[in-house]
Amino acid sequence: MDIVSTPAAAGRGAPATSVPEGFCSANERRLLRLIREKGPISRADLARETGLTLQSIVRLVAALMERDLVVGGPKVPSGPGQPSLPIEIARDAAFSVGVSIMDDALSAVVIDLSGRVRATHEELFDTADRGRVTRHLGSILKDLSGAGGFDRSRLVGVGVAIPGFFVDSRGAVNAPLVMNDWALTDLEAHLGAALELPVWIENDGSAAAAGESVYGAGQHHRSFAYIHIASGLGGGVVLDGKPWRGRNGNAGEFTGTLPPSTRPDRPTLRLLLDLVNAQPGTGRPFPSVGALVQAFDPEWPAVETWLARTGEGVSAILSAAAAVLDPDAIVIGGRIPPGLTLRLIERAHFYSVPVRDQDRRFPTLVASRTGGDSAALGAATLPFLHHFF
Amino acid sequence: MDIVSTPAAAGRGAPATSVPEGFCSANERRLLRLIREKGPISRADLARETGLTLQSIVRLVAALMERDLVVGGPKVPSGPGQPSLPIEIARDAAFSVGVSIMDDALSAVVIDLSGRVRATHEELFDTADRGRVTRHLGSILKDLSGAGGFDRSRLVGVGVAIPGFFVDSRGAVNAPLVMNDWALTDLEAHLGAALELPVWIENDGSAAAAGESVYGAGQHHRSFAYIHIASGLGGGVVLDGKPWRGRNGNAGEFTGTLPPSTRPDRPTLRLLLDLVNAQPGTGRPFPSVGALVQAFDPEWPAVETWLARTGEGVSAILSAAAAVLDPDAIVIGGRIPPGLTLRLIERAHFYSVPVRDQDRRFPTLVASRTGGDSAALGAATLPFLHHFF
Repeated sequence: MDIVSTPAAAGRGAPATSVPEGFCSANERRLLRLIREKGPISRADLARETGLTLQSIVRLVAALMERDLVVGGPKVPSGPGQPSLPIEIARDAAFSVGVSIMDDALSAVVIDLSGRVRATHEELFDTADRGRVTRHLGSILKDLSGAGGFDRSRLVGVGVAIPGFFVDSRGAVNAPLVMNDWALTDLEAHLGAALELPVWIENDGSAAAAGESVYGAGQHHRSFAYIHIASGLGGGVVLDGKPWRGRNGNAGEFTGTLPPSTRPDRPTLRLLLDLVNAQPGTGRPFPSVGALVQAFDPEWPAVETWLARTGEGVSAILSAAAAVLDPDAIVIGGRIPPGLTLRLIERAHFYSVPVRDQDRRFPTLVASRTGGDSAALGAATLPFLHHFF
Repeated sequence: MDIVSTPAAAGRGAPATSVPEGFCSANERRLLRLIREKGPISRADLARETGLTLQSIVRLVAALMERDLVVGGPKVPSGPGQPSLPIEIARDAAFSVGVSIMDDALSAVVIDLSGRVRATHEELFDTADRGRVTRHLGSILKDLSGAGGFDRSRLVGVGVAIPGFFVDSRGAVNAPLVMNDWALTDLEAHLGAALELPVWIENDGSAAAAGESVYGAGQHHRSFAYIHIASGLGGGVVLDGKPWRGRNGNAGEFTGTLPPSTRPDRPTLRLLLDLVNAQPGTGRPFPSVGALVQAFDPEWPAVETWLARTGEGVSAILSAAAAVLDPDAIVIGGRIPPGLTLRLIERAHFYSVPVRDQDRRFPTLVASRTGGDSAALGAATLPFLHHFF
């Protein structure tokens, strides 16, 4: 039985291939999450972890096997001493693509149902013209399908991360002014129609936080705030292992913690670009944040200026995240070069007014650990979250 | 069968009466929550809401009835047209007391298992001497038991809210300097032994948020930040109807969002007391925040001064809560007089920098709606959360 059938997902641009809404029941999703996290895992352990009866587990696993979503041994133990083989996710059952669209760059990743990264793509690309980007994405998808070694009919959808904030709960993003073509429009419908696939939109900070929770710091920290430093500043929140999006999807929009008058000094790579380009002796002006990041040198004098100017805003953001959430960790990521993240963490501090020489315990400050584009990785998890997990 | 048996709850001061740990299974708790929120409710509706089979519901409800935790009709429908009677919480099955200990006042409330408030107690009381307070609490408990019309053996425990922040995850609170006797010690053990009941400690802001979620604004808003304005400033967080405490129980410790240099101007009633007492013509100096609140007059000139001085801090806190959580609402409560809350809300604003004339949607600002001491109400929910919900 093929998991991918043809009915159009409601409101997602009449894609040519899709998985029906509500494909997996709540119990099936619970099992799939467990199997992805702990597999290979025996039916007995699944029963223990879920509190369901072994009988229910056997039935549910059989239904998942029937649809080729999991693989494993026979459905029941064949006798004492001959336990059934443990269950794991059928990796090639389904694929998902995550795309991160920046003002000056594109990044894409394809993952299989087990979460394994199968292929990636990154390039500097002027994204001002949405039509041009969409056409280019079509060919990137084709290349990824070849590189990832899967049939396009197994692709359940595309998650797309873009900078900006949601103005309502229906997916219209107020993107930065330089990305005017992407702002305040139904991107899920437009991109879905152009790519002939269901599309999910997320803002870059929340997508990166979701990516970090699966592929990075989330492996050590169940609850964290994620500060996303790119051309602009954003972020996301993960609580108890799950993304917390808030009413409009804007949780972790950390720019909002800063008084408007201080926003020119907020920690963005746009500010670093301006400082580096204004500094005599750097050799050349960099045309974009992407070019700056590729050439980044922690010894540039402008780095020290950037750290000094942004220090107060960083403290305000860290202190707000710590006070509001009391999370396990705060993760610094985005497009910020790792060398700059370390310098920022060295100098960062939380507002502290100890009582009896003791203050609250503050969260651990860590650098992103995904080793890739967290926003694209997080975007890739969205179609799977919708259908399976 | 009596729900209250004698084994001591581990680590809670060897109380004379208690309910064993792990008394209710996860499924039983789920049912009890549903029945409390939606009862009277039929077994068929319980099956629909939980996704469990009707057979499982019948069995689980029978077990809860056996322990006198719920009441209702016969266990199975006796035939078409004769449906079973709906199930509801057996209100008198168990009682819980919530206490809020302020620097200059005590407040207590007793609730039954259905959540109904059965009796309350409030008084100005100097709480500097913990031994004196504990003895006094003993007699308050006795009075409440009489006024609430229940037997003390039905009391499952006492929740206690005090100001301060947790320094670890084990219940030691760093209370304000004026409450030195309460700080950095194992209050659950001390109070539990003195009251001969299991005791749960929570900080006042988080307790008030929990109270608000059940008895106040939570009836209209699933996710909110709660700003607790009393002698000091604190708060709590409720997400999807459940308190979010954070790693150390300090989520919503909003003082931490403010730069240390601005803390003298944070919105506290201690500041209002100082301003009122410094103003000529108020007639007399008030000895405490409690006395000030009882006599509060919105026309005092000091009120305007307080609003002006605290405005910036209020904006910083509101903006931090909105940016980090994107909640449905922000609730202003604590000991702040309702008339002052309204003035504060009128003048409050979020940091806003619109893009294309559109900013994020900000949460609704509302005043506490519990009509009582939210911290004591929230504290009263703790023993029930531990045992039943």
